[in-house]
Amino acid sequence: MMANKEIENISVVGVGSIRPGEHWHRSLEDMASEAAFEAVADADISLGEIDTIYIGNMLAGMLGSQANLGSVMADCLGLDVPAFCTEGGCASGGLAFGAAVKDVLSGESRAALILGTEKMTDWPIPAVTKAIMSTASEPEQFAGLTLPGLFATLTRIHMREYGTTQNQLAAMSVNSHHNAIFNPKAQFRREISLEQVRRSPLVAGPLRVLECSPISDGAAALIVTTSDNHRTQRSIRVAASAVATDTPGLGQRKKLTELKATREAAQRAYEQAGVEPGDIDLVELDDCFSISHILAAEDLGFFKKGEAARVIASGETQLGSEGGLVINPSGGLKAGGNPVGAVGVYQIVEVIKQLRGEAGDRQVPKARIGLAHDLSGTGVTAVVHILKR
Amino acid sequence: MMANKEIENISVVGVGSIRPGEHWHRSLEDMASEAAFEAVADADISLGEIDTIYIGNMLAGMLGSQANLGSVMADCLGLDVPAFCTEGGCASGGLAFGAAVKDVLSGESRAALILGTEKMTDWPIPAVTKAIMSTASEPEQFAGLTLPGLFATLTRIHMREYGTTQNQLAAMSVNSHHNAIFNPKAQFRREISLEQVRRSPLVAGPLRVLECSPISDGAAALIVTTSDNHRTQRSIRVAASAVATDTPGLGQRKKLTELKATREAAQRAYEQAGVEPGDIDLVELDDCFSISHILAAEDLGFFKKGEAARVIASGETQLGSEGGLVINPSGGLKAGGNPVGAVGVYQIVEVIKQLRGEAGDRQVPKARIGLAHDLSGTGVTAVVHILKR
Repeated sequence: MMANKEIENISVVGVGSIRPGEHWHRSLEDMASEAAFEAVADADISLGEIDTIYIGNMLAGMLGSQANLGSVMADCLGLDVPAFCTEGGCASGGLAFGAAVKDVLSGESRAALILGTEKMTDWPIPAVTKAIMSTASEPEQFAGLTLPGLFATLTRIHMREYGTTQNQLAAMSVNSHHNAIFNPKAQFRREISLEQVRRSPLVAGPLRVLECSPISDGAAALIVTTSDNHRTQRSIRVAASAVATDTPGLGQRKKLTELKATREAAQRAYEQAGVEPGDIDLVELDDCFSISHILAAEDLGFFKKGEAARVIASGETQLGSEGGLVINPSGGLKAGGNPVGAVGVYQIVEVIKQLRGEAGDRQVPKARIGLAHDLSGTGVTAVVHILKR
Repeated sequence: MMANKEIENISVVGVGSIRPGEHWHRSLEDMASEAAFEAVADADISLGEIDTIYIGNMLAGMLGSQANLGSVMADCLGLDVPAFCTEGGCASGGLAFGAAVKDVLSGESRAALILGTEKMTDWPIPAVTKAIMSTASEPEQFAGLTLPGLFATLTRIHMREYGTTQNQLAAMSVNSHHNAIFNPKAQFRREISLEQVRRSPLVAGPLRVLECSPISDGAAALIVTTSDNHRTQRSIRVAASAVATDTPGLGQRKKLTELKATREAAQRAYEQAGVEPGDIDLVELDDCFSISHILAAEDLGFFKKGEAARVIASGETQLGSEGGLVINPSGGLKAGGNPVGAVGVYQIVEVIKQLRGEAGDRQVPKARIGLAHDLSGTGVTAVVHILKR
């Protein structure tokens, strides 16, 4: 990726989302259409001005036996335009946004609709568990490992290396749930106590169930276009778009105390945007497990290695604190919801709302620069976007 | 899509592929790596100059339980770059090429590697049949229809409307097999007779087994970059890149005598390239079934509706004929092989070889402009690329 200031000519001009949850009565198409129409209404752009659709989805093929989701959604929305999916496991949503930005930047499309959508609750848990494990390496899958198990391994190593405590880990969830009560579209809108987290059942020691994000149905949408076509007070500039990959198997990695893909994507994004971690007012980061929250906060450069857990546990990055950076004002994946392939789109929706000053009770004061961090599996793919008011 | 002449600044500078077939002893990664290294060697570019990887694949998640194929392949190739998949069923390979072209056009990447790869023979046939049917609509899947069945319906309608005969249909396969004997990388390198096709077992009447493309393992690779970075006698310009979609269910379509997505993608591509169907010297079109060969030849604008079958059956579009346009010099999907999500990449590899004049015994004389047409399911997604010497 080259430094390319022209990316700032691309703006997000519309956002939409449905509240993630267990939507037994709704189809993937139904959820995605609602999010898309909300984004179109929000953008003050007509549906007919959309030249292309990018879809972030991980499981429709594997669980729902539906390939060509692009065509399915174009058909649903009555749009006769190019449409297809980007796939990079749980990071598919962030990848869809990045690909759409490049499309508009290339001059091939004027306005693009990005749809993140996922249906996870319709299938038996073992099928979902297996599908999610498709983000891991083949040997890890064959060994019968699970994502909680792999993240538990990373947790133990982090605890040993940096003295990270179980109370600190539990505090990640407490924080996320606190933020989520101010987000009408969060999946879990209730406070939880440190005690509750510590007493919740073990999933893969030391990780407990209240340290794990849920599975969710959901859909979110974004509309991007060039400044030339559409520029209002409410449009937010894309300052950087970066993707990085890592070897899928933990056993092949040089370091297990950091997620290399996150570090690399972040570094490239800061370079492209011409900003530093200290300039970020809010971040929506991938906290699929409590340890992920800590690793991301460190690897995105907000804290020195080994120092994130203590500071975040103290509440400094919560909504309403005086600490500067706010982490996951939406409630993150933990409390906001985790419709895997749609997460990257949800994150950007939240960043846009914050930068517009339209986040209501969870508004981060004077938010000017926001970052979204989408992760697949145990850091196999990371996508980082920086957005500016 | 806007008309954008800047696309001609993008060139294909390297190609590679393995012969499609039943590669029981080879993994997807192994096949894809060979194709990638061949493309890199062919391009006279170093692996380190590649900024990004786009992967065309349909089935690795559904059958192989491997998401994040981008990261897996980046890891295999030792490349620390952004990498992910594009998904649009059987058209995934064409979509990967299109997305990579936009990436380079946007200025975000200087050189991109496009990998099409598919492993189909490792799984039981019912699993593969179900996976391929994921390109169809949900009602079609629930009804127990198969792709041969759906294409058989289109065949019957075409026969009724235009008097297309079973001998004409059979001739499509005879032609493809004829061309394939000159292609060392074709899956089936042997002539077949009209009689053999007509006597082969019915799959879904009137389609017979020798009118159906095979399932294949395979991998193909392309390298694209801007003219500024790399321009030699062997680099071939991208003149147009177009994607179109259609409603997945045949029952919802207005016309069943044509594939709307193919028509639309072709029309946009001709417009962007500033050429007409008559300017095309060779086409690699999606002939997953004999009827697909005919529909594509018509809907790409080479023949008036209802007239393709007679002309093609007469041998006018075969290698070595004097007719002008050559269809599927590689042998197409029927005889060349059909590794579904990789097909779009294979097609462009063939077009490039022809335009370079490096196609050996199957060289189309004085080939200057070539077209590649990648199709998913029953025309749910179509991708058309035009390339110029």
